[in-house]
Amino acid sequence: MYSKRFTTYLLLLCFCCFPLYAQYKTTTPINFIVVFVDDMGYGDLSSFGHPSIHTPHLDQMVQEGQQWTNFYVGASVCTPSRAALLTGRLPVRNGLMSDRFRVFFPDSKNGLPASEITLAEQLKKAGYAAHIVGKWHLGHRKAYLPTNHGFDTYFGIPYSNDMDFVPRPDLQSSYWELWKVHHDKLKTTDFHVPLLRGTTVVERPANQNTLVQRYTDEAIKIIETHQQDKQPFFLYLAHNLPHVPLFVSEGRKGKSKNGLYGDVVEEIDANVGRIIEALKENKMDKNTLVVFTSDNGPWLQTKHLGGTAGMLRDGKGSTFEGGMREPTIFWGPGIIQPGRISALGTTMDLFATFSAIAGVALPKDRILDSYDLSPTLFSKKSGKRNEVFYYRERELYAVRVGAYKAHYITKGGYGEFPLTVHDPPLLYNVDEDPAERFDIATQHPDVLKKIEQVVKAHKAQLHMPEDLLKDRDKSYNNLQNSKR
Amino acid sequence: MYSKRFTTYLLLLCFCCFPLYAQYKTTTPINFIVVFVDDMGYGDLSSFGHPSIHTPHLDQMVQEGQQWTNFYVGASVCTPSRAALLTGRLPVRNGLMSDRFRVFFPDSKNGLPASEITLAEQLKKAGYAAHIVGKWHLGHRKAYLPTNHGFDTYFGIPYSNDMDFVPRPDLQSSYWELWKVHHDKLKTTDFHVPLLRGTTVVERPANQNTLVQRYTDEAIKIIETHQQDKQPFFLYLAHNLPHVPLFVSEGRKGKSKNGLYGDVVEEIDANVGRIIEALKENKMDKNTLVVFTSDNGPWLQTKHLGGTAGMLRDGKGSTFEGGMREPTIFWGPGIIQPGRISALGTTMDLFATFSAIAGVALPKDRILDSYDLSPTLFSKKSGKRNEVFYYRERELYAVRVGAYKAHYITKGGYGEFPLTVHDPPLLYNVDEDPAERFDIATQHPDVLKKIEQVVKAHKAQLHMPEDLLKDRDKSYNNLQNSKR
Repeated sequence: MYSKRFTTYLLLLCFCCFPLYAQYKTTTPINFIVVFVDDMGYGDLSSFGHPSIHTPHLDQMVQEGQQWTNFYVGASVCTPSRAALLTGRLPVRNGLMSDRFRVFFPDSKNGLPASEITLAEQLKKAGYAAHIVGKWHLGHRKAYLPTNHGFDTYFGIPYSNDMDFVPRPDLQSSYWELWKVHHDKLKTTDFHVPLLRGTTVVERPANQNTLVQRYTDEAIKIIETHQQDKQPFFLYLAHNLPHVPLFVSEGRKGKSKNGLYGDVVEEIDANVGRIIEALKENKMDKNTLVVFTSDNGPWLQTKHLGGTAGMLRDGKGSTFEGGMREPTIFWGPGIIQPGRISALGTTMDLFATFSAIAGVALPKDRILDSYDLSPTLFSKKSGKRNEVFYYRERELYAVRVGAYKAHYITKGGYGEFPLTVHDPPLLYNVDEDPAERFDIATQHPDVLKKIEQVVKAHKAQLHMPEDLLKDRDKSYNNLQNSKR
Repeated sequence: MYSKRFTTYLLLLCFCCFPLYAQYKTTTPINFIVVFVDDMGYGDLSSFGHPSIHTPHLDQMVQEGQQWTNFYVGASVCTPSRAALLTGRLPVRNGLMSDRFRVFFPDSKNGLPASEITLAEQLKKAGYAAHIVGKWHLGHRKAYLPTNHGFDTYFGIPYSNDMDFVPRPDLQSSYWELWKVHHDKLKTTDFHVPLLRGTTVVERPANQNTLVQRYTDEAIKIIETHQQDKQPFFLYLAHNLPHVPLFVSEGRKGKSKNGLYGDVVEEIDANVGRIIEALKENKMDKNTLVVFTSDNGPWLQTKHLGGTAGMLRDGKGSTFEGGMREPTIFWGPGIIQPGRISALGTTMDLFATFSAIAGVALPKDRILDSYDLSPTLFSKKSGKRNEVFYYRERELYAVRVGAYKAHYITKGGYGEFPLTVHDPPLLYNVDEDPAERFDIATQHPDVLKKIEQVVKAHKAQLHMPEDLLKDRDKSYNNLQNSKR
């Protein structure tokens, strides 16, 4: 009798602990959608504390999914952050961090090396289709474009939406003045940014007012295609907004209480809602994992046109929390267990996580900086990641180990305060003090010693490659090596 | 046929627009519970953006109720803020704002004048019972205690929990040093704060480790009593935490990721959850309106022991948003319509709101600063309040009209930056720029003119009474005029 009851308990226990996803594992493959927005800060969604931006669709995803409050990017600016997400590796490992330029420009010569394995290429091994809609920014010469990096289709702009500015005689001003003083006068035609399909320019200048909607239309078409052909897919939807210059569709102008920036964020929110709706309509909501996050913190130097990192310190460009901790949501009803997650995670972890879910072995010929987050997603188990490396240029500025973060070097996001080397490093407990206000280095020499060991082990297996961002040449400008 | 369908539509329309509450109006009276916490900042709940404090019970109330993101207190420090809530009037109208002292101290002579009508007295007119559990801080001499201000019962401490400090020879330090350096060494017995029941001291020093739980026990007893006697009630539950010194019950120590401050906030959260649970168990959740808010912003000068205002500027003591905008939740399933509310509201509005719901006419012999928020609560109608007055000491420092806020005077919360008079005033759009970073006065002379008119009209009906906070006398110390 006792033994029978014991067996029942055991069975019940197994059943309860069994990851939610297990029931799908042998039946339906999981699709992956990553919505990666540009320059949105930790505090820019209502569910992350913004008082006047209203993001009901993303907030609903928070309610139904997991809200990650300690989720990081691989770098605090565009190009290296995107490289990190797609390769599962710190960008310092593949040359996409530089001492000279922080991102690719229209006259940059290089791109993500062909030797890198992108998430698209990785998931292909399990028969996934792969699509990118939106901003690439990993090299715009033909060899470097997404369709040469494992993506089946590409619809989007090749670099940032503020590049290719066509000088306006009436706007004689510095870069920063442009945003502070003249933003109202800017038109989408002032930026000669190309819109590509595959490797072909289909519109130039891209009409940026309608891109959020058009990207979403494209994404929905992709969802519908795979509802038909039943092929599992990876969709990387990288909105180039709310990066300045800010543009919204006609109907959205002045709709938010937060000004133009709020209008843009609310348009993105509504369009993420359309994606969720399309998944539901196509009955793919139970086998699709959607991740929402941002490529780096808010661009504070663009003043009222930039977002906010909430209580986190500094923003884009900086290795303080505001530069690299992002508002992150995992959504997938029936796949992941809803809740608020304080485990550490990074965009680089998507590589190992998606690989594990899709059943693809990780490459063994290179160092990855990627942890499988699926135990946390499926059953809220504590994660394996215990450290975050905050690189800037080609230097390790800061390291987080558990709750503690040591800053070896600090510098303002875009140079508002100078480079300072700290010896001993600054030490913050970023769980107790997320705003990084109170240096506690003198109280915790033991913690500093432990972090120093982590750094030593990390540096021992780091081989700095050639700087691929440094080479620029006017003759490579304007996509001349892409067929238009 | 058409006419019949039209009538059906009309009836349906009427039904839909009919406030939810209407169905209760003639049947069951609504009870009111105000949970008023001490020194908690705008950013201290997970649902208001805190990354490492976890407040699932309050977050659940946000989900089921209304989250107000533009809700203010009547003053940025304790005594005047409490007076404002209980009287529905700016404290500058009744002498509880001073040029010398900002709050009552144990040797203060005065208290809230008997001529003031408290919410307790007001609701009595409709047959309500009234109870206060927690911190009073509106005068501790017998004549001023809550039971002489309309409350039937009182269980709590008469002033702040950091008062009556018994000098410790081993802690030779300034007030600020006490929190920064010695907090770990402080014991609940170091503060000779009395705990009263009615006008009688029942414990001294109050054991502050268990107060949150004991206050909640008392509140639940009150709920159960009125479940029995069916008398409608107003319960003012004013936790004296997370004001420093921070104390938690044994089981809570070290439980949060945010250190001692997080432990305290999470203990309050769990205990608010107990109140909601008790309402459900007693089947009073459908006819009780619960309001949660804080008396002022976080006490930033207590460093790692204080909370955070999130992205809002400054904290307690200041007339920047961080000092006076509070994380506010209205909960009452079946009474109020859930949602995120951007309408302006203040604690003073509870007076007119509760009066309207209880059916009590507002007093006509005095000026109130109170708007009835019930149309927003019942049917999310836009509110009538369009302005907020930010007083400090006896001066009008700032005024918000719609989205715009003009600062005539600024000063740091506790003197970290000096008093500055602004002429022309600083002007912020606090919807577009909640962090008050960008002065736009020169761009909007029209707005400044409009605000100036509001100020003129306001000042024309303001008669400054005697300063009741200025009188202190050691001989009045230690509750000697209260029977112990």
